[in-house]
Amino acid sequence: MSQPLARSALDQAFFEARTAHKFTDQPVTDETLHALVDLCKWGPTSLNCQPMRLVFVRGAEAKAKLKESLSPNNADKTMAAPVTAIVAWDTAFFDQLVTQFPANPTMRDLFAGNAKLAQDTAFRNGSLQGAYFIVAARAMGLDCGPMSGFDNAKVDAAFFPDGRYKSNFLCNLGKGDASKVMPRLPRLSFEEACRIA
Amino acid sequence: MSQPLARSALDQAFFEARTAHKFTDQPVTDETLHALVDLCKWGPTSLNCQPMRLVFVRGAEAKAKLKESLSPNNADKTMAAPVTAIVAWDTAFFDQLVTQFPANPTMRDLFAGNAKLAQDTAFRNGSLQGAYFIVAARAMGLDCGPMSGFDNAKVDAAFFPDGRYKSNFLCNLGKGDASKVMPRLPRLSFEEACRIA
Repeated sequence: MSQPLARSALDQAFFEARTAHKFTDQPVTDETLHALVDLCKWGPTSLNCQPMRLVFVRGAEAKAKLKESLSPNNADKTMAAPVTAIVAWDTAFFDQLVTQFPANPTMRDLFAGNAKLAQDTAFRNGSLQGAYFIVAARAMGLDCGPMSGFDNAKVDAAFFPDGRYKSNFLCNLGKGDASKVMPRLPRLSFEEACRIA
Repeated sequence: MSQPLARSALDQAFFEARTAHKFTDQPVTDETLHALVDLCKWGPTSLNCQPMRLVFVRGAEAKAKLKESLSPNNADKTMAAPVTAIVAWDTAFFDQLVTQFPANPTMRDLFAGNAKLAQDTAFRNGSLQGAYFIVAARAMGLDCGPMSGFDNAKVDAAFFPDGRYKSNFLCNLGKGDASKVMPRLPRLSFEEACRIA
């Protein structure tokens, strides 16, 4: 039977984890990106649908393309980050269910025939996977700077011109400079956010 | 500088974590629910918006109310679970920004005046928080059974009659019976889901 993780592990993943606004010069290698994806991919999605898609923006040309879509307060820190993940989803994720959920081959048609169900499922599960990505990065000793302050349509036009993938949020990634962390914001109390019925 | 967590911690949170379909009789106490919320609440949300709301369905009356909305394949296992979390979001989450994001008091009005932005932000960030909830539960040694197979409108009518909160997904919670875990499903490869640009 599982026990709680050590306090130091809970600290790193949750209690003491902080959004990074500035990173050290340490690069994020292909090997690290593969290890991160191989960790976060195990998080659960409904019917194992796995709609998340990731573009790791690291090269100069891709960075310049991304810069056009960033809000002014996010541009400089994102250009300076070792890598920026575009967390997106695949609008046609259901085509992969035949291999990813082999128990019921009719599931593809359920989504293919219901655009609202497909969109909601992709957005919900793609966001769940985005959170697994953030927590997995922290568990690997990386720091994250997730952002919603950008123009989704511009990112989609620049990186997903055929329209199949849709951007969800962005996440800078690297080794954070702890001296540039912002004061921590409050959280809602149990009573404000939860009830036991 | 943070190092990767021990392999045993990564195993518990990701590599070896499995969806629970049956739980032991060990109850989930108020104290455990408070500890879980106090852990997962530190996951990041955009502008610290924290739209997630949780109803922990544990009592007989609340369980009977929930049962009406469950798909047949989810009903028995959910009724037998120690507790089921209704993971929901607050459509009026922006009213709390004055205390939760004090740096910019105009942010409330941005969402109050843009229903699509408010809805997308609540769904995205409420789903991120739902994933933090799942990973935090696993980090605490609990097992999760998340589900989308239920009638959201029925749950909302039964638990959120004033219409302010919207159900997102359900998550059974307790100590899992490892003998009832299903065969593990595959995952997409790095090349299928990701690219480096």
